[in-house]
Amino acid sequence: MTAAADGGPARRCRLLVAYDGTGFHGFAPNEGVRTVLGELVETISLVVRRRVELVGAGRTDAGVHAWGQVVSGELPADTDLLDLRRRVNKLCGPQISVRDAHWAPDDFHARFSATSRSYRYHVWNDAAPSPLDARTSWHVVRPLALWAMQAAGDPLIGEHDFTSFCRRPKVAAGEPPASLVRRVHTVRWTRLDDTPMLRFEVTASSFCHQMVRSMVGAMVDVGLGRRTPADISALIRARDRSAAPTVAPPHGLILWEVGYGADQPAGDRR
Amino acid sequence: MTAAADGGPARRCRLLVAYDGTGFHGFAPNEGVRTVLGELVETISLVVRRRVELVGAGRTDAGVHAWGQVVSGELPADTDLLDLRRRVNKLCGPQISVRDAHWAPDDFHARFSATSRSYRYHVWNDAAPSPLDARTSWHVVRPLALWAMQAAGDPLIGEHDFTSFCRRPKVAAGEPPASLVRRVHTVRWTRLDDTPMLRFEVTASSFCHQMVRSMVGAMVDVGLGRRTPADISALIRARDRSAAPTVAPPHGLILWEVGYGADQPAGDRR
Repeated sequence: MTAAADGGPARRCRLLVAYDGTGFHGFAPNEGVRTVLGELVETISLVVRRRVELVGAGRTDAGVHAWGQVVSGELPADTDLLDLRRRVNKLCGPQISVRDAHWAPDDFHARFSATSRSYRYHVWNDAAPSPLDARTSWHVVRPLALWAMQAAGDPLIGEHDFTSFCRRPKVAAGEPPASLVRRVHTVRWTRLDDTPMLRFEVTASSFCHQMVRSMVGAMVDVGLGRRTPADISALIRARDRSAAPTVAPPHGLILWEVGYGADQPAGDRR
Repeated sequence: MTAAADGGPARRCRLLVAYDGTGFHGFAPNEGVRTVLGELVETISLVVRRRVELVGAGRTDAGVHAWGQVVSGELPADTDLLDLRRRVNKLCGPQISVRDAHWAPDDFHARFSATSRSYRYHVWNDAAPSPLDARTSWHVVRPLALWAMQAAGDPLIGEHDFTSFCRRPKVAAGEPPASLVRRVHTVRWTRLDDTPMLRFEVTASSFCHQMVRSMVGAMVDVGLGRRTPADISALIRARDRSAAPTVAPPHGLILWEVGYGADQPAGDRR
């Protein structure tokens, strides 16, 4: 327990958050536009009657969804978390949903404590669109070779410099450029039942900007026969963003889960 | 092949249509509002450059979705159906999707030739809403007893007068009231994987107005402990709409499939 800015006792909390990114200008607060974290901060501040500051495990771009985003920050220590969840969901739902709310150790930080992130990307691969999947999947009309896409994904596993797959972050003059080395743990393509819906699942230590969408764009190029799986290895080695593949559209992407390792279990709800 | 109204040769076609009902004022054309069939008629008329008339297998209410709606009508006999599908989907997609288009026998009628209809209804049963399922499922916060809901569904199977479950259709003065006897073939509740999503599947010869939503409302009442499965049998016998259960909201409902029997296979695509 620590002291809050206005003097009252505060306690670190950890929220599990889902959202439909369709109507938001991304996750991170941004002056003058509607963002997921901006709306959460406003609503929770209203409910606990104190200005709160919150951070998320990963920034998602405009249009990207989440099922398991994690958000942390300090709340008044006497907050009833079950009641908070109910009230926030009443005000923010159903576009944003606080799925769970726990107390966490004082040093818990949604972003810096995270040890892994998992994303999913859905591709609807059929001549005709699927109306009820249109908000959450990329519609690719030409037939995709799923085995080739998996073969293209395999070289992405392991520790690599993902410069070819990342939008280079802005750095201040004189600052060294940020490392784009990331460790990808797993990469998997599956077809859902016997439907035209293809699902890509990827887990990594962390991701740089547009990395999943660039990976999907490259693998879909392979699935269409425009590139070979071997081209993907060459693309990694090139470390050159200008050799970059198609960036898949944001609405097929969903932040699925954030991992914190065994030393950071979710805490009490009270 | 028959003669079209304006003299050119015409041929009966059969379209398989999916839609997201969210943005429409129902299926059937209705002066001054946007409806699914209204939009299809306008678009296909534009594409084939002739005024077409189309009928659907079942009218769905405002907000109700479809995966397997069937639509029939006459098109100019020289219409390229693959090209028609592509052009209609470009203009109407992704809210409406023509999944398939076939030629059909002259006596095929989407509604009168149909021998069965299947619907699905989804219930998200969790304290917190699911943002990406909010358009297509009913969010029920209090825990539902799935076994009790299945037990409540069993007495619905078979041929019954479903007056208690149907909104009585308007009839002209002096006309006899329409029969509300229907034959329900199958009724099934399942939980999707280990998620809070419950799926109801029902197949019948045909359905009267609001019948599926009334059935779901009654079974959810049982799942919440407000009624017992035996109450459902009593409700059927009562033949009394005023004893009617809660009507489940439209956005959880989806017209899944229409059956036509072995003598009405889908015809050629050319």
